[in-house]
Amino acid sequence: LRQFKVASEAESRLDARIESIYKEYPQVETTMLSSPGVISVYHVWRGGQDPSEAQQTLEELVKRMKDRLGEALFTEAEETLAEVIGRLLRDRGLTLALAESCTGGLIGERITDVPGSSDYFLGGVISYSNQVKSELLGVEPVLLEQYGAVSAPVAEEMAKGARERLAADLALSITGIAGPGGGSAEKPVGTVFFGYADSQGVDSTRLLLPGDRAAVRMRSANMALDWLRRKLL
Amino acid sequence: LRQFKVASEAESRLDARIESIYKEYPQVETTMLSSPGVISVYHVWRGGQDPSEAQQTLEELVKRMKDRLGEALFTEAEETLAEVIGRLLRDRGLTLALAESCTGGLIGERITDVPGSSDYFLGGVISYSNQVKSELLGVEPVLLEQYGAVSAPVAEEMAKGARERLAADLALSITGIAGPGGGSAEKPVGTVFFGYADSQGVDSTRLLLPGDRAAVRMRSANMALDWLRRKLL
Repeated sequence: LRQFKVASEAESRLDARIESIYKEYPQVETTMLSSPGVISVYHVWRGGQDPSEAQQTLEELVKRMKDRLGEALFTEAEETLAEVIGRLLRDRGLTLALAESCTGGLIGERITDVPGSSDYFLGGVISYSNQVKSELLGVEPVLLEQYGAVSAPVAEEMAKGARERLAADLALSITGIAGPGGGSAEKPVGTVFFGYADSQGVDSTRLLLPGDRAAVRMRSANMALDWLRRKLL
Repeated sequence: LRQFKVASEAESRLDARIESIYKEYPQVETTMLSSPGVISVYHVWRGGQDPSEAQQTLEELVKRMKDRLGEALFTEAEETLAEVIGRLLRDRGLTLALAESCTGGLIGERITDVPGSSDYFLGGVISYSNQVKSELLGVEPVLLEQYGAVSAPVAEEMAKGARERLAADLALSITGIAGPGGGSAEKPVGTVFFGYADSQGVDSTRLLLPGDRAAVRMRSANMALDWLRRKLL
């Protein structure tokens, strides 16, 4: 048995990327177990009793998967995205702050699920209302009016504000529309923006995620954590 | 079938309170399904084909349960503590803010799991580090030094600070030791303090909860939500 975990928006999308590889290995059974935003891939040898053939084939298959998937493959161990991020932050001696809107605390919950996370996690602001975005994170009300709470400029200001007010090295922010209400033609339900701030400046990205309220929240939390992880590589 | 949900620290504790009642009803099968902090109780009629006898017996049994359990019984419907709290806040036109330490965002995640929660939930502060407790919530560093971060005075100041800084009608706070590290003889792992603030003043309470890190966090989130719910009755 060999296993690895991939951060991905959907199993179908991951499958399209790796199908051409694992189909070349009929003696290996490949299965995927997906939760919204994180997919675990398992390779089980079914080709017979020769342990060295099994090991060699699995090694080769996993090597090809790693080459294809690159940074999207985040672990070959039994660890979560939050644990990988914790290791990266600890190794580099960096502290983290959060600013969460649509996830309402879910990302903080994941980060602090890891024992010892107080070594690198300072805390965060759950800025569910616009007033909290302005008063606790310093997001200019004119930005909220002009671009809306779910926008790249607001995500960036949230991250910048969290980094400054919590005196952290890095900050991650998220603002989005989890539904069922609140969607529009321009920004449908599932639209999320992530923001990032460090000593070099700010960045943001936009995604459109499928699913109901619970799935959008879980998927966006995992995709945000994965975006942060890639920033740390 | 009749069902209800009870906020309780442990199934054994709930069972000790209601056992003497349901044992009087051998024609009703009573089962409990527990998650840390919330226990669902199911009564299924097994006494025969007479629907009026079934209904009458179940009515009487549930009435006796309600009398025995009082406010601990929080719903007879398929709803969560967060939904019940949302209904109470909405009915009374009140807004809520949070200050979370050991739960790291879990309570906010629960509250915002409810669609439309932005009507009454303004946001919160995840004050994982002491510095965030002081700078974002206004907890005096001397309190943290004198009583420790996990203490009644700090829980109360956290709630007061969240209420003021987020301009909410009510605030709920939580600070505790989820483990595995951080426990002491005076404050073992599982010690949590809840704080509450409204226009009348502040209050706090202390609990000692069983379980590992994940169970302490989940149990303390549910017990904190239940404490808030009782404040709203």
